[in-house]
Amino acid sequence: MANFKELGRRVLESQPFSRFLGASLRRFEEGVVELVLEVRPEFLQQHGFVHGGVLSYLVDNALTFAGGSILGENVVTVEFKINYLRPAKGPVLLARAQSLHRGSRMAVCRAEVFEEGEVPRLVAVGQGTIARTGA
Amino acid sequence: MANFKELGRRVLESQPFSRFLGASLRRFEEGVVELVLEVRPEFLQQHGFVHGGVLSYLVDNALTFAGGSILGENVVTVEFKINYLRPAKGPVLLARAQSLHRGSRMAVCRAEVFEEGEVPRLVAVGQGTIARTGA
Amino acid sequence: MANFKELGRRVLESQPFSRFLGASLRRFEEGVVELVLEVRPEFLQQHGFVHGGVLSYLVDNALTFAGGSILGENVVTVEFKINYLRPAKGPVLLARAQSLHRGSRMAVCRAEVFEEGEVPRLVAVGQGTIARTGA
Amino acid sequence: MANFKELGRRVLESQPFSRFLGASLRRFEEGVVELVLEVRPEFLQQHGFVHGGVLSYLVDNALTFAGGSILGENVVTVEFKINYLRPAKGPVLLARAQSLHRGSRMAVCRAEVFEEGEVPRLVAVGQGTIARTGA
Repeated sequence: MANFKELGRRVLESQPFSRFLGASLRRFEEGVVELVLEVRPEFLQQHGFVHGGVLSYLVDNALTFAGGSILGENVVTVEFKINYLRPAKGPVLLARAQSLHRGSRMAVCRAEVFEEGEVPRLVAVGQGTIARTGA
Repeated sequence: MANFKELGRRVLESQPFSRFLGASLRRFEEGVVELVLEVRPEFLQQHGFVHGGVLSYLVDNALTFAGGSILGENVVTVEFKINYLRPAKGPVLLARAQSLHRGSRMAVCRAEVFEEGEVPRLVAVGQGTIARTGA
Repeated sequence: MANFKELGRRVLESQPFSRFLGASLRRFEEGVVELVLEVRPEFLQQHGFVHGGVLSYLVDNALTFAGGSILGENVVTVEFKINYLRPAKGPVLLARAQSLHRGSRMAVCRAEVFEEGEVPRLVAVGQGTIARTGA
Repeated sequence: MANFKELGRRVLESQPFSRFLGASLRRFEEGVVELVLEVRPEFLQQHGFVHGGVLSYLVDNALTFAGGSILGENVVTVEFKINYLRPAKGPVLLARAQSLHRGSRMAVCRAEVFEEGEVPRLVAVGQGTIARTGA
């Protein structure tokens, strides 16, 4: 398992945009992944909350990693949908995604984004399709 | 119209995350908006293409601005869906969104993201719901 | 609770399309609902599986009832997304939906559709927004 | 073209659920299709409007046919998203779908549903992914 998580970390580290935002991988198992992001002032929108684009990055990437954890390294997110539930402030966001179904070339996954704290607050949910590249 | 576009620019400038990525507003009319983003090396994923999270930011924000152009300044994106069509490289991405329907508190909008060039290439499409805050 | 479920049944019975298809309400609690549908030959598509439109009806209606169970009787489905996971045959389909978040006028809900049997098979999943009418 | 449309009609006729609802194919060209449905009293919900499940059937099937018009007969709808814009009454609904992008195994399509009349009213919009079976 240590090696498997190391693989996930290596892929995340190889994404310039994920490094740019500072995302890290807390959990990477077959079908379940968790990404963590510390909110920085430049991640906000005009009302002082985390920008929707940051949350959609988290959902997109968590879905991709959940799909990749079962389909292999060469996957892309085909599509996803996100619902924003509450304004998020941070200081830390956790995105958890899991696979619901795996086909030969595609997987359907769901994701939740939480604002961490004594009581985690659910701030966004997503659902999407991951496919092997070339699929 | 000049003042209206100025309003849009002011809102975009007041979003730290949009400034962080360097997005600019090319068009801002009632029900139709265009955002432009120059692709930087830190916006890529591990295969050298623009990260899905950057495209989802563009769709999210273009939808919000399209909704805001008809519902007023105080709006949020309730939800959206994105389909990724082709890998994008840049050097410039254009996100165009338009309103399809306006209710009293909500608007439904669509967005397309193009890689600019002699022949623009459609790289992602989205559809979502924008609501007045407090709605 | 008996009266609450009776309220749900009354609403379902007042939907001509739900009567037309023969849907029934197995569970109706605050935030969690289950709809059941017996598959009839006229519900199929050309390959002998349940038509996607039947599954999307189930997701739509389960989401609406889940939202209605917490927002009250006068609600509409604003939007939803569905992923089809496997071909479904029946003979009985169960759609379960639950509320993930409730605002003053809107709720975000998720749904799963199962083919019942000794081992229930997940055949479709959905996520959507329910709003009070007038919202 | 006459033969191509005939092919589309044959597929629609081979869908028991489409016959059950009475859908017909008005247009079937490469990448653009139109389905027509006469609203019957049993298609309504409790407030006298067309049930969302009927509109989602139309979006689902129009998307499938649009994808099938370019990918071939053996396709399935992988997923879609629908936004409901206005209550629909009929007496006739038109669903138009078009392909936005075609890959080797998948196509991304959009759909609009109109209530026909002197001035057609847009009542729902959708976006989804169609794939060749086996894909």
